[in-house]
Amino acid sequence: MTADFDRLRQADLPEVRAAIRAGRYTGHTAGLGRGYLQANLVILPEAQALDFMRFCQRNPKPCPLVGVSDTGDPMMHTLGRDLDIRSDVPAYNIYRHGRLDGTTTDIADLWTDDMVAFALGCSFTFEHALMQAGIPLWHVGNDTTVPMFRTSIPCVPAGPFAAHMVVSMRALPEGRVDEAVALSRRYPLAHGAPVHAGDPAAIGIADIARPDWGDPAPLPGGHVPVFWACGVTPQVAIEAAAPPLCITHRPGHMLIADIPEAAEVPVLAPQAA
Amino acid sequence: MTADFDRLRQADLPEVRAAIRAGRYTGHTAGLGRGYLQANLVILPEAQALDFMRFCQRNPKPCPLVGVSDTGDPMMHTLGRDLDIRSDVPAYNIYRHGRLDGTTTDIADLWTDDMVAFALGCSFTFEHALMQAGIPLWHVGNDTTVPMFRTSIPCVPAGPFAAHMVVSMRALPEGRVDEAVALSRRYPLAHGAPVHAGDPAAIGIADIARPDWGDPAPLPGGHVPVFWACGVTPQVAIEAAAPPLCITHRPGHMLIADIPEAAEVPVLAPQAA
Repeated sequence: MTADFDRLRQADLPEVRAAIRAGRYTGHTAGLGRGYLQANLVILPEAQALDFMRFCQRNPKPCPLVGVSDTGDPMMHTLGRDLDIRSDVPAYNIYRHGRLDGTTTDIADLWTDDMVAFALGCSFTFEHALMQAGIPLWHVGNDTTVPMFRTSIPCVPAGPFAAHMVVSMRALPEGRVDEAVALSRRYPLAHGAPVHAGDPAAIGIADIARPDWGDPAPLPGGHVPVFWACGVTPQVAIEAAAPPLCITHRPGHMLIADIPEAAEVPVLAPQAA
Repeated sequence: MTADFDRLRQADLPEVRAAIRAGRYTGHTAGLGRGYLQANLVILPEAQALDFMRFCQRNPKPCPLVGVSDTGDPMMHTLGRDLDIRSDVPAYNIYRHGRLDGTTTDIADLWTDDMVAFALGCSFTFEHALMQAGIPLWHVGNDTTVPMFRTSIPCVPAGPFAAHMVVSMRALPEGRVDEAVALSRRYPLAHGAPVHAGDPAAIGIADIARPDWGDPAPLPGGHVPVFWACGVTPQVAIEAAAPPLCITHRPGHMLIADIPEAAEVPVLAPQAA
């Protein structure tokens, strides 16, 4: 796996996608397809699709919608010229009635003609912008998963979808916080500006050393914990809604689109007929 | 009407909304409820709602979604504490099978429990930003309607919804174009950056002096025609889809939300229970 990953990091997007599609690569996607938009994935039956789409519209910071398939069509036409949602994500989680029921690397046998696939923007986009500005991100430098926490911030519900917001935390040097806020605000499709900076208790986090997901990260002196809305939030909403079947990406194993990550609009122009 | 309008321009938002709700004011909303987000309105039966929402997601520059009601609920909870879509817009257009079939000032008798209301961002927001930067807008200074044109730019279709993009044109001094692009790009929920600047023929506009909607505007020497995606586009898509019933705002007679127009996210926080 490691050898594959090191080689794929140098590869262009078509080669990366071919390796994922063929099942030759089933690992995480951080650092792959550099410069291209990566996205969280949620697949639901059409019966839940309108409510889920309303949940995303009402909670755009945790759930920034970047693509939606036609019902029953596994090709994500607005995100790629040849992007098959059944095979082009390295690994998938399968939820039945809101509970994780397994992991797989291809969902061709699960896809049915009433399904709708949703792609949601992820934090990689604004993290790249922060790093390019020279703002250090501890979890990247130390190859761990960013710490994520349940909060007391209520999302706006839609039908059966309801959640308290999940956030990710990055400890930033005090003097760089304003800059990080301004920079990430430029990426509304990648969670936008932080939802909070400072006292974790103010948003219902009891112990900053014990994340609910991901790995703990230090909070050194002179640093401020900065909290961004997190793409794990829809997973919590899906647990609450408990649809008969829901398929997501496996965390960290993202959909990589043909769209440059800094694109103003995450939509391929229609091809001439 | 003029006296009403002059008085309402000085009024705060609750007074403006009360006048509209009571039917005492049925005119256009430019200059009313200053500082608050104004929006285009589209109301459709739920059977068309998912496809229309996909059309908006795929064409965010002409159709920036800022709010969606629950099915059958006329209160736009995310856009106002007490915002009733049946009465709180000054005037409505009624389309049957894609054709304009009348205008009214209250739709309480037309609202049914399978309806979904969509609010779409409008150009007022970025126009205010341009004017604050000292960029002159001829149609505002001359109290005319901005000229709008059909183009050859295809939208991405969704189900029965399909259109070529409609654009609005503002002639800007050559030296201010880059600034106008950068400024309006900051407002993705108000059409974002222009889709074109320069030769009208490049986007299929044969005669810049003859707009398809609105009033002609001059193109003086040293000025460049700058084209933004326009909120009339969904109206063209609705004509194509020809749903049995569709209700929109009457052009210029917008929904005014409780949301500040510069808000990062056009969503009221849920109230404490």
